[in-house]
Amino acid sequence: SIDADRFRETFETYSDIGRTDNDGLHRLTLSDADVRVRDQFVNDLESLGLDVRIDEIGNIFGRRAGTDPDAAPVLIGSHLDSQPYGGRFDGQLGVLSALETLRAFDEHDVEHRRPIELVNWTNEEGSRFKPALMGSGTFVGEFSVEETLARTDADGTTVEEALESAGYRGDAECGPREPIHSYLELHVEQGPVLEEHGQSVAVVDGIYGMSWLEATIEGTADHAGPSPMHSRRDALVAATDVVQGIRRLSNRYDDVVTTVGELTVEPGSINVIPSEVTFTADVRSYDDTIVAELVERVESELEAACAREGTEYELEEIWRIKHTEFAESVRTAAREAAEEAGVSHRSMVGGAGHDANYLTEVTDAGMLFVPSVDGRTHNEDEFTEWEDVVAGANTFAETTRRLSQ
Amino acid sequence: SIDADRFRETFETYSDIGRTDNDGLHRLTLSDADVRVRDQFVNDLESLGLDVRIDEIGNIFGRRAGTDPDAAPVLIGSHLDSQPYGGRFDGQLGVLSALETLRAFDEHDVEHRRPIELVNWTNEEGSRFKPALMGSGTFVGEFSVEETLARTDADGTTVEEALESAGYRGDAECGPREPIHSYLELHVEQGPVLEEHGQSVAVVDGIYGMSWLEATIEGTADHAGPSPMHSRRDALVAATDVVQGIRRLSNRYDDVVTTVGELTVEPGSINVIPSEVTFTADVRSYDDTIVAELVERVESELEAACAREGTEYELEEIWRIKHTEFAESVRTAAREAAEEAGVSHRSMVGGAGHDANYLTEVTDAGMLFVPSVDGRTHNEDEFTEWEDVVAGANTFAETTRRLSQ
Ligand SMILES: NC(=O)NCCC(=O)O
Ligand SMILES: NC(=O)NCCC(=O)O
Repeated sequence: SIDADRFRETFETYSDIGRTDNDGLHRLTLSDADVRVRDQFVNDLESLGLDVRIDEIGNIFGRRAGTDPDAAPVLIGSHLDSQPYGGRFDGQLGVLSALETLRAFDEHDVEHRRPIELVNWTNEEGSRFKPALMGSGTFVGEFSVEETLARTDADGTTVEEALESAGYRGDAECGPREPIHSYLELHVEQGPVLEEHGQSVAVVDGIYGMSWLEATIEGTADHAGPSPMHSRRDALVAATDVVQGIRRLSNRYDDVVTTVGELTVEPGSINVIPSEVTFTADVRSYDDTIVAELVERVESELEAACAREGTEYELEEIWRIKHTEFAESVRTAAREAAEEAGVSHRSMVGGAGHDANYLTEVTDAGMLFVPSVDGRTHNEDEFTEWEDVVAGANTFAETTRRLSQ
Repeated sequence: SIDADRFRETFETYSDIGRTDNDGLHRLTLSDADVRVRDQFVNDLESLGLDVRIDEIGNIFGRRAGTDPDAAPVLIGSHLDSQPYGGRFDGQLGVLSALETLRAFDEHDVEHRRPIELVNWTNEEGSRFKPALMGSGTFVGEFSVEETLARTDADGTTVEEALESAGYRGDAECGPREPIHSYLELHVEQGPVLEEHGQSVAVVDGIYGMSWLEATIEGTADHAGPSPMHSRRDALVAATDVVQGIRRLSNRYDDVVTTVGELTVEPGSINVIPSEVTFTADVRSYDDTIVAELVERVESELEAACAREGTEYELEEIWRIKHTEFAESVRTAAREAAEEAGVSHRSMVGGAGHDANYLTEVTDAGMLFVPSVDGRTHNEDEFTEWEDVVAGANTFAETTRRLSQ
């Protein structure tokens, strides 16, 4: 059993690093707050006597030896970065459940054959640097190290520059050094399912596939007064038409979600017809062929809206990830652990991408979810009842114990 | 007759101050470029031996005495600020036509009974500080000096701070010191009418009334993945619905224009449902009751869209200006001047607000337009053929001469 009080204290300590006025978390990748939380994390790993390793893109590992030095290790963890004005549970809870698991193992002298490695992945959120799951994606070879280091934020700062000024450009090569036995991650559900069913834990079957798109529409800047309506080429009129179309797309399918999260207008002056609008689209489905279809439909919407308004467009797919099915071995261990811990549980499919998705490419991976009150996340109101957190952490610790035998 | 070569040289000198790579002009109110062009202007006024006066909100005046020191002066001028990445003709051409007029009067020893005052109004565009026509509006008492000094730009800098760091917070009281005989302003048409009719000059009958609105829609930030579509309160879905509605509004009327020029999204992350969208609306008609009706209809659009999406809104009218009818006395002088100068001309109503609008509140005001190629303005491609510029400036000089007798 984990120590719920110690866990809670640690959770509050970490939540103070980047805590917002509304009790949320603002800790963008490699920002000052992210650097401070990394320092805290490395410190906590060292206090546990773990062997700390930082790789060339800033992923942080702490290794606890098992009784068999030659056995493939179990990897456990999540991410410490947050969305802008996001919540305290997203990511952090997974890292701290893993930390508390190793503390509890220490305290109770839990024996395990396999080494256990705790990990914090760099830039899971994809808010400062796109795409998301960057640290794990690079670890499994989905992105090359060069490509990742060259990614830029909105100000043009590269990942490499950010790592260097943060002091988190490590020496270790990014990628598996040895076969990995399994990967386990606990995360908040970020949706309403567990709460609706009054259950504390989900053993996750799989994750939606998704595509991230970036569109630019070019019109003609002109004066909002003397320019007749019929001759306008208004980039914002075309773009808002597309945003409406993207929302309507989801009506055509069961279990598809579509979102436009970013949109910027140039030149952005009250009395000037917009000449350029850039916006994103995020489309998801558990069915990879439907994701492909959604991308085509977004393009059709752009084509139709631009034909109507006389504007031009460009569309770029900046990220695509297939749907994920987690390993039966990890799911079984997790189900048995939940039973043993006496925790109410269910299986479900998740709509958010996680580092565990990419880990399936190199090992048997799996996930546990704990409930999100009102399903809310990616905002300061994100919340999970503490008894659910404890139930999840206990299930997590027991699953880890089983996997590491 | 004005000196076309000297005029052109001056125009190029001024255009170099804030010239963009694409031969446009980026000279936002009280920016570095605006300060440099003001310095140049004050210098040119002093070289002409004019009596220079700067008022407490930065309007710059240069006075040439007439033969009758007790006669009410004629005021001529426009503005030197520009839109972001705007054109070289908008505003600047009016100030420089006035400058060239006084140079020509000097050269040809033109006698005039009335004093003539040349003016550059602060912040005509309304891009950095809202609303537009700020300098002239304060001059005629439409805005109080305190209110104007307290206006802020997007970074929170006040007009007062910007004036002080620019060194253009003058000593003179803002407002008429004496009765003013008349006000004359030359401007680019910024629309297609003169070009369509192949004419060089318009004697302007009047200007559209307009309203500037600022709307905020509040939704709920949440994750773009696991949040079911049916429970979303997406501020951008509601806002884009309203932008489409505002565009459609113009279909219901003859000669109404509606524009959304600014729109920003919070938190603005690709995988987060937008929680807040702020946008502007600019609605115009020559009929003031229609402007009032348009404002109501914008509010109805907001209400309907927010009812559909479950979002909330706030709407603020930040500026309203009635339609303007210019003085018959000035229009007659301008028509006669165009005839005398042998310039093809017409009368028309303009869709853009000008400092001349507010001047009608304290004097007989009037305007001349010169053509805009393709009607384009508020962008770097803004252009007027030089022969039309010269025709306009000659008509302007002759009108000024007539008014100042
Ligand atoms: N869990 C999470 O928020 N991951 C970021 C990637 C995504 O948008 O699904
Ligand atoms: N002429 C001009 O661009 N004035 C700014 C105010 C308006 O938008 O009409």
